Amino acid sequence: MTTNAESIAKRAKTAFDESQQRLSLSGREEADKIRSRALERIRSALESSKEEIERANREDVRLAREQVESGKLSNSLVSRLDLFSKPGKWDSMLQGVSDVARLPSPLDVCTYSKRLASSDSVSGDLDLYRLTCPIGVLLCIFEARPEVIVNIASLAIKSGNAAILKGGKESKLTAAVMSRVLSEALAQSELPADLVQTVETREDIAALLHQEKYIDLVIPRGSNELVRSIQREARMPVMGHADGLCIAYVHDDALLDMTIGTIVDSKTDYPAACNSLETLLLHESHLSTEFWPRLAQSLVSAGVTLHCDESSLKVALEKVEVEEGKKERIVPSTSEDYDTEFLDLDLAVKVVKDLDEAIRHINLHSSNHTDVILCSPIVQDDQGSTSEEEQDPSSAASKFTKSISSANIFVNASTRFSDGFRYGFGTEVGISTGRTHARGPVGLEGLVIYKYVVKAKGKGPQTAGAFSLPDGDSKKRKWDHSDIPRKLPRF
Amino acid sequence: MTTNAESIAKRAKTAFDESQQRLSLSGREEADKIRSRALERIRSALESSKEEIERANREDVRLAREQVESGKLSNSLVSRLDLFSKPGKWDSMLQGVSDVARLPSPLDVCTYSKRLASSDSVSGDLDLYRLTCPIGVLLCIFEARPEVIVNIASLAIKSGNAAILKGGKESKLTAAVMSRVLSEALAQSELPADLVQTVETREDIAALLHQEKYIDLVIPRGSNELVRSIQREARMPVMGHADGLCIAYVHDDALLDMTIGTIVDSKTDYPAACNSLETLLLHESHLSTEFWPRLAQSLVSAGVTLHCDESSLKVALEKVEVEEGKKERIVPSTSEDYDTEFLDLDLAVKVVKDLDEAIRHINLHSSNHTDVILCSPIVQDDQGSTSEEEQDPSSAASKFTKSISSANIFVNASTRFSDGFRYGFGTEVGISTGRTHARGPVGLEGLVIYKYVVKAKGKGPQTAGAFSLPDGDSKKRKWDHSDIPRKLPRF
Repeated sequence: MTTNAESIAKRAKTAFDESQQRLSLSGREEADKIRSRALERIRSALESSKEEIERANREDVRLAREQVESGKLSNSLVSRLDLFSKPGKWDSMLQGVSDVARLPSPLDVCTYSKRLASSDSVSGDLDLYRLTCPIGVLLCIFEARPEVIVNIASLAIKSGNAAILKGGKESKLTAAVMSRVLSEALAQSELPADLVQTVETREDIAALLHQEKYIDLVIPRGSNELVRSIQREARMPVMGHADGLCIAYVHDDALLDMTIGTIVDSKTDYPAACNSLETLLLHESHLSTEFWPRLAQSLVSAGVTLHCDESSLKVALEKVEVEEGKKERIVPSTSEDYDTEFLDLDLAVKVVKDLDEAIRHINLHSSNHTDVILCSPIVQDDQGSTSEEEQDPSSAASKFTKSISSANIFVNASTRFSDGFRYGFGTEVGISTGRTHARGPVGLEGLVIYKYVVKAKGKGPQTAGAFSLPDGDSKKRKWDHSDIPRKLPRF
Repeated sequence: MTTNAESIAKRAKTAFDESQQRLSLSGREEADKIRSRALERIRSALESSKEEIERANREDVRLAREQVESGKLSNSLVSRLDLFSKPGKWDSMLQGVSDVARLPSPLDVCTYSKRLASSDSVSGDLDLYRLTCPIGVLLCIFEARPEVIVNIASLAIKSGNAAILKGGKESKLTAAVMSRVLSEALAQSELPADLVQTVETREDIAALLHQEKYIDLVIPRGSNELVRSIQREARMPVMGHADGLCIAYVHDDALLDMTIGTIVDSKTDYPAACNSLETLLLHESHLSTEFWPRLAQSLVSAGVTLHCDESSLKVALEKVEVEEGKKERIVPSTSEDYDTEFLDLDLAVKVVKDLDEAIRHINLHSSNHTDVILCSPIVQDDQGSTSEEEQDPSSAASKFTKSISSANIFVNASTRFSDGFRYGFGTEVGISTGRTHARGPVGLEGLVIYKYVVKAKGKGPQTAGAFSLPDGDSKKRKWDHSDIPRKLPRF
């Protein structure tokens, strides 16, 4: 019996194969134009269906509000769910579709090329090319944010993949309308309608995670618990976007003002984001100077509660002038605090005796999202010269960046820069904390893989048997392995 | 309670972190020299322990022979297990260690760099670099071939990873001695002794597959059954090296002699290899000419049994002159034959009416390892010129390479070229049929990933709050996202 999940997965795979076949005789630029035209068609279709989508979204929001009143949902979920109350949210979702359409195509890029062997009296040249190509069918699971449906669909289409999308259940009505609009727009484009599908229930997801025959990659976004359970259940690769337990270490030669500005920004710019700071490691030398008291003072004034280990607590309680009613912002830490992603105005603080201890702490407790060292600055000259010859190379920065295995490692910069838009990728699927395929902010490049294409010339057969083994017959054909231009092969 | 598996995994992770920290103050070349020196030390240690290893291997072989006699093991397993009877096998294993040592380092290569923002009155330049780095701890599971322990250990060390190795149980005694020799050699090098460990039992593997906290990637080689069961059990990413159901399609404009040479080589050069041919798709036009009879004749003469569909069977039985006693080499196919990896001198044959049908068959039945089209040749001129301007561009080749999603797609060449050594990678971990991270022949590049390093200059704080949002305050700092040289940043 074909289950619902199997039929969805199969349709996605068929649509993927079909899209590759339809575009197979178009050149690289032409194929990208076809994909971009489909995106513009989706944008128009969304624009003309605004009223219907707004109606569905208003109903989703109303139902979610009821749940908020009975204490089952948070207000922040409602504000993420609501696509129309915040000015500009709908328009910037539409603009996002056009932005993705205009990004350079990540497909058919030649990343390696070699002449395996040159022609001889029997056979012609034998050339190898490595070309980027889509991964195939993606299963994307995310929170109740309707605009993410459109974002991820755009990225999937631009990168040549098929996608099955599942948003949070609270956005169900909005998702259903948007999904229909997307499929209708695709049906009128040069791409198959089933290239993007949405599913509604958790049961669908559980069944889809076993469809490894048709689905090539799962991309879950959301709570750690969600991502972990998907990693356990899925029979195909998972690109998880899970916890951000980001840690900053303040070395003994860090500058006070730079540190205060950077740490306060890391913690308070958007505390609920995965790239906000959760733990502060402090070189012990800072306890005996004004450094730690002034840094702690700034954090407390910015509304942060400091969860301090014994020695930082003692100094903070003695030296920080806390306003009336804010005394409770300096508290003793528990050992769990150093493994906690607060996602709020809370910061765990720990004193370390040197850089090595800081590195060991980070390798043990960090979620490998983004970790920072604050240390002596790389000085630029008076003209703010961008010369590459820095003064004051700091061996601490060098040791830190090489000893830590996190996806993003910063020297003297806020954790909040860890983001696809800020990195210049145009947009992102999420921030991966995995160690294979793609990590850090994942843009279009993370949605492609490559294939090897071997192109043989000449009229004679190209056989492996014609070649000599490493210790073999000297009259046989020889391997060449020389470089040839990195470009798309013509046939 | 700490289990054995947990303690092994933890030691591997500690050794990995420790190795990164030890080499963190060395430059790129110096770090690579340290790794290569460790490899040379391993080679010497293996050389001086030859006698002891040979004793253990002889005992493994003796025990395996007993099992062969009682019908529990195949002779080919014994020959793979035996490290000393075949001349050159031991020496070429040792040579392999030095070869890997001499390969260019895959680490600390800058693959992306941008100036995120230029300096202003407060902050200096903010620069982003993407640098290749090791994945971390690898768990490698492979067959009873003792030399693979040394191959994979070499690749892991060269690429900066830690490795836990498990070979087939029949190589247990050899593995135990080699493993001790490896660890002792590492202990005397500048790298930690636990960087390479081996485990012996299946129970260890089952437990290790749940140590996702410490192990970053599983690389299984072996039967499909083994790889699938690991994919189901593992809580970390798996780079599977599973089936090779390779398919060749003979288009209507293919040349007969080129086709015969290429197909016979694909099937018979080494039938037990994953890159040997298993299914032949034939354009229907070849039934009514001498094409199919002559191709079939050549295959049968080369010892191949043809499992034919109805129409190819009819023609073959009529036109092929089969020697006495070889009649049984032309048989009717079953539908399972088109999903079977024979790994022997058997070939499934099917007639298709056009290229589109061939593509659909391949997308449905291929294991995405290596698929080939035979079609009109790309002619080179009399001097065998290697000019890039080909005559006769074949749209069939173009359509085939773009419509098929396999890891290796060949035009007019034998499937047997699908191999890391032949591709010029020096060596390979295996051939991955997955769709993420690395596919096709996986060399050193497949054992690394990347990290993003952000380097801020200047004495002022680098805060995300200082930047304008896309629709924001024009007096704030602007994103730059301009290219800067792709090189390792200095600190």
